Amino acid sequence: MPKYIYFFGGGKADGDASMKDLLGGKGAGVAEMTRAGIPVPPGFTLTTQLCRLWYADRKSFPKDLDAQMLQNLARVEALTGMKFGDATNPLLVSVRSGAKVSMPGMMDTILNLGLNDKTVLGLAGRTGNERFAWDCYRRLIQMFGNVVLDIDKENFERSLKARKAARGIVKDTDLTAEDLRALVEEFKATVQAHAGKPFPQDPARQLMMARDAVFRSWNNQRAIDYRNIYKIPHDLGTAVTVQSMVFGNTGDKSGTGVGFTRDPGSGDKVFFGEYLTNAQGEDVVAGIRTPLPIAQLDKEMPEVFAQLREITGRLERHYRDVQDFEFTVQEGRLYMLQTRSAKRTGFAAVRFAVDMMKEGVLTPEEAVLRVEPDHLQQLLFPVFDREKRKAFAPVAKGLNASPGAASGAAVFSAEESVRRAGRGERVVLVRAETCPDDVKGMKASQGVLTATGGRTSHAAVVGRQMGKPCVVGCGMLAVDEHARQFTVGEHVVREGDALSIDGTTGEVMIGEIPTRESDIIRVLRGELPAAESELFAYYSDFMACVTKVGGVKVRANADVPADAEAARHFGAQGIGLCRTEHMFFAAERLPIVQQMILFAEEAKRAMTEIAALEAKAKKATGPEKAEEEAKLAKARAAGSEPIAKYRGALDQLLPLQRGDFLGLFRTMKGFPVTIRTIDPPLHEFLPKREELMVEIAVAKAKGETGEALAAKERLLERVESLHEFNPMLGHRGCRLGITFPEITEMQVRAIFEAACEVAGEGQTVVPEVMIPLVGHVNELKDQKAIAVRIAEETMKRTGRKLAYLVGTMIEVPRAALVAEEIATEAQFFSFGTNDLTQMTFGYSRDDAGKFLKEYVQDSRVLPTDPFVSIDRSGVGQLMRLSVEKGRAARPGIKLGICGEHGGDPDSIEFCAMLGLDYVSCSPYRVAVARLAAAQSLLRSRATAAKAKPERATKRDAAAPARKPRRAARVAAKASSKVVAERAIVRPTKPAARPAMASARPGHPATRIIRIAQAGGKARRK
Amino acid sequence: MPKYIYFFGGGKADGDASMKDLLGGKGAGVAEMTRAGIPVPPGFTLTTQLCRLWYADRKSFPKDLDAQMLQNLARVEALTGMKFGDATNPLLVSVRSGAKVSMPGMMDTILNLGLNDKTVLGLAGRTGNERFAWDCYRRLIQMFGNVVLDIDKENFERSLKARKAARGIVKDTDLTAEDLRALVEEFKATVQAHAGKPFPQDPARQLMMARDAVFRSWNNQRAIDYRNIYKIPHDLGTAVTVQSMVFGNTGDKSGTGVGFTRDPGSGDKVFFGEYLTNAQGEDVVAGIRTPLPIAQLDKEMPEVFAQLREITGRLERHYRDVQDFEFTVQEGRLYMLQTRSAKRTGFAAVRFAVDMMKEGVLTPEEAVLRVEPDHLQQLLFPVFDREKRKAFAPVAKGLNASPGAASGAAVFSAEESVRRAGRGERVVLVRAETCPDDVKGMKASQGVLTATGGRTSHAAVVGRQMGKPCVVGCGMLAVDEHARQFTVGEHVVREGDALSIDGTTGEVMIGEIPTRESDIIRVLRGELPAAESELFAYYSDFMACVTKVGGVKVRANADVPADAEAARHFGAQGIGLCRTEHMFFAAERLPIVQQMILFAEEAKRAMTEIAALEAKAKKATGPEKAEEEAKLAKARAAGSEPIAKYRGALDQLLPLQRGDFLGLFRTMKGFPVTIRTIDPPLHEFLPKREELMVEIAVAKAKGETGEALAAKERLLERVESLHEFNPMLGHRGCRLGITFPEITEMQVRAIFEAACEVAGEGQTVVPEVMIPLVGHVNELKDQKAIAVRIAEETMKRTGRKLAYLVGTMIEVPRAALVAEEIATEAQFFSFGTNDLTQMTFGYSRDDAGKFLKEYVQDSRVLPTDPFVSIDRSGVGQLMRLSVEKGRAARPGIKLGICGEHGGDPDSIEFCAMLGLDYVSCSPYRVAVARLAAAQSLLRSRATAAKAKPERATKRDAAAPARKPRRAARVAAKASSKVVAERAIVRPTKPAARPAMASARPGHPATRIIRIAQAGGKARRK
Repeated sequence: MPKYIYFFGGGKADGDASMKDLLGGKGAGVAEMTRAGIPVPPGFTLTTQLCRLWYADRKSFPKDLDAQMLQNLARVEALTGMKFGDATNPLLVSVRSGAKVSMPGMMDTILNLGLNDKTVLGLAGRTGNERFAWDCYRRLIQMFGNVVLDIDKENFERSLKARKAARGIVKDTDLTAEDLRALVEEFKATVQAHAGKPFPQDPARQLMMARDAVFRSWNNQRAIDYRNIYKIPHDLGTAVTVQSMVFGNTGDKSGTGVGFTRDPGSGDKVFFGEYLTNAQGEDVVAGIRTPLPIAQLDKEMPEVFAQLREITGRLERHYRDVQDFEFTVQEGRLYMLQTRSAKRTGFAAVRFAVDMMKEGVLTPEEAVLRVEPDHLQQLLFPVFDREKRKAFAPVAKGLNASPGAASGAAVFSAEESVRRAGRGERVVLVRAETCPDDVKGMKASQGVLTATGGRTSHAAVVGRQMGKPCVVGCGMLAVDEHARQFTVGEHVVREGDALSIDGTTGEVMIGEIPTRESDIIRVLRGELPAAESELFAYYSDFMACVTKVGGVKVRANADVPADAEAARHFGAQGIGLCRTEHMFFAAERLPIVQQMILFAEEAKRAMTEIAALEAKAKKATGPEKAEEEAKLAKARAAGSEPIAKYRGALDQLLPLQRGDFLGLFRTMKGFPVTIRTIDPPLHEFLPKREELMVEIAVAKAKGETGEALAAKERLLERVESLHEFNPMLGHRGCRLGITFPEITEMQVRAIFEAACEVAGEGQTVVPEVMIPLVGHVNELKDQKAIAVRIAEETMKRTGRKLAYLVGTMIEVPRAALVAEEIATEAQFFSFGTNDLTQMTFGYSRDDAGKFLKEYVQDSRVLPTDPFVSIDRSGVGQLMRLSVEKGRAARPGIKLGICGEHGGDPDSIEFCAMLGLDYVSCSPYRVAVARLAAAQSLLRSRATAAKAKPERATKRDAAAPARKPRRAARVAAKASSKVVAERAIVRPTKPAARPAMASARPGHPATRIIRIAQAGGKARRK
Repeated sequence: MPKYIYFFGGGKADGDASMKDLLGGKGAGVAEMTRAGIPVPPGFTLTTQLCRLWYADRKSFPKDLDAQMLQNLARVEALTGMKFGDATNPLLVSVRSGAKVSMPGMMDTILNLGLNDKTVLGLAGRTGNERFAWDCYRRLIQMFGNVVLDIDKENFERSLKARKAARGIVKDTDLTAEDLRALVEEFKATVQAHAGKPFPQDPARQLMMARDAVFRSWNNQRAIDYRNIYKIPHDLGTAVTVQSMVFGNTGDKSGTGVGFTRDPGSGDKVFFGEYLTNAQGEDVVAGIRTPLPIAQLDKEMPEVFAQLREITGRLERHYRDVQDFEFTVQEGRLYMLQTRSAKRTGFAAVRFAVDMMKEGVLTPEEAVLRVEPDHLQQLLFPVFDREKRKAFAPVAKGLNASPGAASGAAVFSAEESVRRAGRGERVVLVRAETCPDDVKGMKASQGVLTATGGRTSHAAVVGRQMGKPCVVGCGMLAVDEHARQFTVGEHVVREGDALSIDGTTGEVMIGEIPTRESDIIRVLRGELPAAESELFAYYSDFMACVTKVGGVKVRANADVPADAEAARHFGAQGIGLCRTEHMFFAAERLPIVQQMILFAEEAKRAMTEIAALEAKAKKATGPEKAEEEAKLAKARAAGSEPIAKYRGALDQLLPLQRGDFLGLFRTMKGFPVTIRTIDPPLHEFLPKREELMVEIAVAKAKGETGEALAAKERLLERVESLHEFNPMLGHRGCRLGITFPEITEMQVRAIFEAACEVAGEGQTVVPEVMIPLVGHVNELKDQKAIAVRIAEETMKRTGRKLAYLVGTMIEVPRAALVAEEIATEAQFFSFGTNDLTQMTFGYSRDDAGKFLKEYVQDSRVLPTDPFVSIDRSGVGQLMRLSVEKGRAARPGIKLGICGEHGGDPDSIEFCAMLGLDYVSCSPYRVAVARLAAAQSLLRSRATAAKAKPERATKRDAAAPARKPRRAARVAAKASSKVVAERAIVRPTKPAARPAMASARPGHPATRIIRIAQAGGKARRK
């Protein structure tokens, strides 16, 4: 029979930190702490396997489970010196849920189990605090009644209110022991009335019923919803931990608190936390007392404080990470209730990593693994001008849901946001709460502020997704969307009024505070001396570690020199995608591009006809010849205008494109630059069909005539002829280049003229010509022939000789399927995973919103949005096929990715697994991508190290062997994402008799954690 | 050294019919005929390998090739008793091209080689015909000058004309020997002047130069173009046959002719051909003499005629197929120049096969292999009255998208089509291009004509589906739908004008040509007694052979009972695809469907909100509860209308859909019926966005207001919200069913209520519910759960128990990639190869016309249109993956195909190779598909037989072993598509001294073949 119960207490534990899967985060944590000699109230954990078994087996347990639990309970009794159900010295226990992945507040917890009509008296006697004992008892009945017996809370609240009203008091705390005793009687009657049975007096029965309720709560609606949102599998199950209770509210020598070993907001190396004497968590929730800074504990109970510092310092070293802990002091005795890696802001994450590396706690590799890629991204967000910020006092504070600073005119609807942004205004969207309809308004805004909703609300999730600063759940605001204003305190903010929000702190300021770019970006741009920025120093130290680790190369998608410049600053090793057509949209170019498009078809037809007639005329004899020649002359005359216009436009575009490429080549200083030939369908460059239709129809309805209308009609005719039902699958990519080879010729000529010019300046140039949307090898053959011909011509003409490559995007499923053929022509593959995802799933990225949201969130069809992270089993399978087939046909073929996924850490890991040579992402994602690349390399080493049959386990091995072993250890840690099992020094003062105190949702700890999470990305994991 | 020259003559030949690859069709044919003792002028063939070698080796030959040729020439001299270059008895030879695949007229041929200033006198002496000799000589110089020396024909024509003018005559034939001798001198001077060297007098040099020119002509432009068009590989090379010349124009005992062993137009068993006494092919081309029916030969030269009958009869038996032959009679002696399988009409093909089977020449299996699937299809189309058709000249020609003849009044809108058809008029629908809205108009019409779109355009696909004749992409038409007319050249066709189209040829005629339905269809429908139709008798006999062979099962795509009925008539064994939404377009249903769509989103939102509020209200307590209940009541009130409208529409659709399915189940009498849930995006059922935009804008411009306009604006709002950029990749298929589960529920309920009702009538019903557009197993899980729940509910309610399946389309690439997951839920897979092709290639079928035409024809990017025949390497690879993975996960999983490819013979063969259980095609393709299925079975047996190491080769083997051997032989023949090598009886009269005659392009044979090909599908092979 598998082991279902894991005991912990007295310095020993059956489990350890590696057993999160089985014991949940909570169970594994208390086991590990107990093992480490930390004073933890003893108890035992029922495994997640038991939970799965219970669900699988129609909610029944192995037969002797109850008996086993009672045996474990006996061990707790032995350690605490108290007895469960004992009339004089009763042991009380809590029953808590705890899954592998933290789901705060989603599942149920029951405290004070073990109290009944008799033991309540024993508790009163032992503590000498009758009111406390009766309060515990009434809370137990209330909580048990609601959670276990499913009785509406309202029924208990009613009694409580009636009692207070009768006694003429307002606060619960004014209730006397006598009041509470009476309430207990009322509550028991309520249980009998609603549940049809009495509140169970048998403590063992209480325990078993509570256990079942907690297991049941794994599948309550809010837990299911939460798992859907955070992509947590539904079949993990929860563990249940039964732990002896300690109380911080038994007198002045008791108390409770939470803290962090370093400041999780700023990253400062200061012991940080809050504390309340003679208190329980609920007292803080009730708002009657303000918690004290933890330093106060040093004054009140210096020994306890010293012990706490020692223990938490040990915990930080043990877990090799900054800790977030909860503790209770009961009658001068310290108990640790929980410790875990602290949530942190991006800045703190980087600072922790760098500082701890400098302290010698972490290796550079470990430091790299301590910072989430998105944490790093936070360092790059705009911030308020620090000096100017000082002039603005926050008027409200909400939840810091998405970091960064934003300011602009307040607007109260998505439409207004879009409207004002359309005319160049900066706006902050304010809503009671946002809904999917608001997305376009959010997109158009600088930031988003909501009155309700938590860090997982729509606004928060979408805000983070968009990288928009976002403050949510700012309950102090009274938002009146109808009147288009909100009030906060005495302030009224109306539509158009200036407003600023700080998504990193959750603060709301009235007035427009200038924002500025991150110091890091300013330093990189040379706008700020590096020495003046502490932020940059940390960034720089951290990126040095990243560089040291290495990993798959990172390039950037950049179309203009400014982007290329930025990419270089962040350490890009090349350009993975330059979209040549992006430059076509420039105001001065669009008319030329439109001319090219408007005459392309006609010119092509004329050229074809002329060529055919030339051939005919050459062959013809006698009068026929004259006839054919006349026809030819006529065709030449007819075709001369469209051909001239078409070629003329191309001739005008050539120097402009050449200029674009010159800038890129010069900026990239010898790093490879991949330039893609024209990709979008031509109609994208023309006015919209339906708009023209409306314009013309209206003009006609108004009786207009004349050349302007006729010209519009001709334009519409051309637009109609280019109209496509599914442009995504239409006449674009290399299909255009094949139909209009002159466009490819012009672009390739511009590339090589620029490259030769830069080469002439003495700089290395590595142009890589990339043909988009290839599905059949013949498409690539056709375009490659043009590219090679023009390249050779140009080099010959300029007398330069360059190394260059011609390759293709792999973005059409067929290309992946026949990659072995395509590789015979392609010198490189670059995965265009945007289109590949669109076609593999059959999702139009522009349209999929309609169902994809449901797919990903509600209907649970897809585990993640495939446009965010590569769908490994489908799209990834095609990529794997391409890699294998491509390499088989052309060993050493260069492989990269230039889709949006190139900046997504999970996708980067996958690309690294495939052995791609590089990933390419937007310039401002380069640092993040480099971090993700380094992390994935470390993780892959870990996997490799794990796979090795032999692994050194002793610390005292010979020196030369140390390094690899250390790497393996780091790697193993990274891989399993659990802390390394390190021998730690035994504590100086082992914990003894635990008694009372509690930490629970709503506890001050939760509040502090909330602050500490500032900017921490809640969505990940 | 390989053998480069293959001799034939004197009853012996080095080559045979199986060596087409090496000797070309011509070389293999004369070798086989020579071997068979047929009188053929002797000669020799230079192999295609030599051609390839020549191109590979910079146009040079193995050193001793000339010497080898002369040795072979000596053998020809020996057999003919003449001598090449001899002054008194000169041998003349022709040098002809001949590739493996026939490329009529594309490459060069040179006749009369061996003539020079001396031998011309010898020829004159031997034939006693001085004029003839000089005429041959001047023709040689003219042809040689043009083909070998690349001199413009014009130069020779000019001399000829000048001579005729000087002599005051018009016809070449009026030129005297003297004239021709003078012309020879002029021609020689022309050669000297233009080529810079004299016409070569050395016959051997003439021969070698002619040989080189013919090899060179393999790569002339027109040959390259031809190969591109007909998908003939460019690396085959041509063979060159040097053959002694015979002449049909040496007097009254000479002549030339072409013929067929049976009538290739009607299929009648009559000896069929044309003949001219004392003539060469050119005489017919010049149009001076009318050829005589071949029967005339019997009167003029009965012995020759008898010999010809005997020889051609023997050829037919030898090749086991009807022959198309060319012959020349020189001085009473018969020479066969060419024989090959005759091109034939569909009707002739079936008749030949059935007749020859009845004659015992062919086995039923061989008969099945003798008819191309498209031949069979021709038998089913409506036809023009053959006599009356002659009076109408085509005014335009488009793409022959759906075969058959149609005539009626031209109409320019679907509405007009329906309106006129409603009052009994026959109409032809003319559109710039069709869209889904036109379907009802197409249905009501006799045929469809469009100006744009390819063979895979909407009109073409729907036309074939409906069996409507259809001509598309007729770019010569300028269609003005607004003015309701089109112009073509000087013709203007207005609405109501009579119009005829021939979907078999793509021709458009002005005027109404009477048509009638195929007799076969009339018999199957019971409109004509079977005994009255000869056509039906042949069809019926032939299909009996097909049935006997069997092969992969054939189902039909049918949405309504009438289609199902037709499918059954043609032998369909089930319905592979019923598109439930096609029924939504019916006039009486569309408003209901639109109501459903217009309220779906709002109803869904309301239902979700109400559910959420219900939950909240249940949980709330105190005054909050009242508040929540008020909110709930409000939401219920607000939602009541949309919900009622949405559900109301579904309730109205339910009985209508049930009625549809009732009809299908009853018609299919126990055969399985696969019904697909709703597939297209909802906006397809609503008015067009841009049309509404224009309407509203115009109304506003005109200052209109009021409720009608407001209603239109509301409608536009909804249409806008449903608008998609790429509908093909949008919110459709199972994505709709997941978003709006009520639609799936209604459809499944209709299916099972109908099935249960039919089961109640005592009939077997096998419903197969098919979920479209699945890409992830969870999508199928979701929809399957609904289907199973409703199915079980309905069966329980009706008390019936049915076997049923729930499966999926495999049409999204991802589905194929993860087929092993999907098969865990799917009980069957049906390949939707239309969409699979669209997504695998990234081609929108509606838009691809723009480049696909170039891809397939000019640019040589793709070998075939992937929407016509399955792209085996890309799309086919995904299908193979699906089959393998699907079977691995669910052994015995049912597999089929329901895309357009299900009716394409090449694709059917591929499906058979994959081992699919069935193919499904449009009802009128069922017979064709069955034939293709039978043929592919025979071919696969052939491959299997070939693969067997032992194979009986002796004809006198023991009887029991015969059958398998016969099967193997049939199969081997089918596989290689070359005739079996059968021992044949030696001829009674071996041919002796051949002399003169010729057949060449432009020969009457070509004319007859052209007629005979009427309707033969030129594109295939």
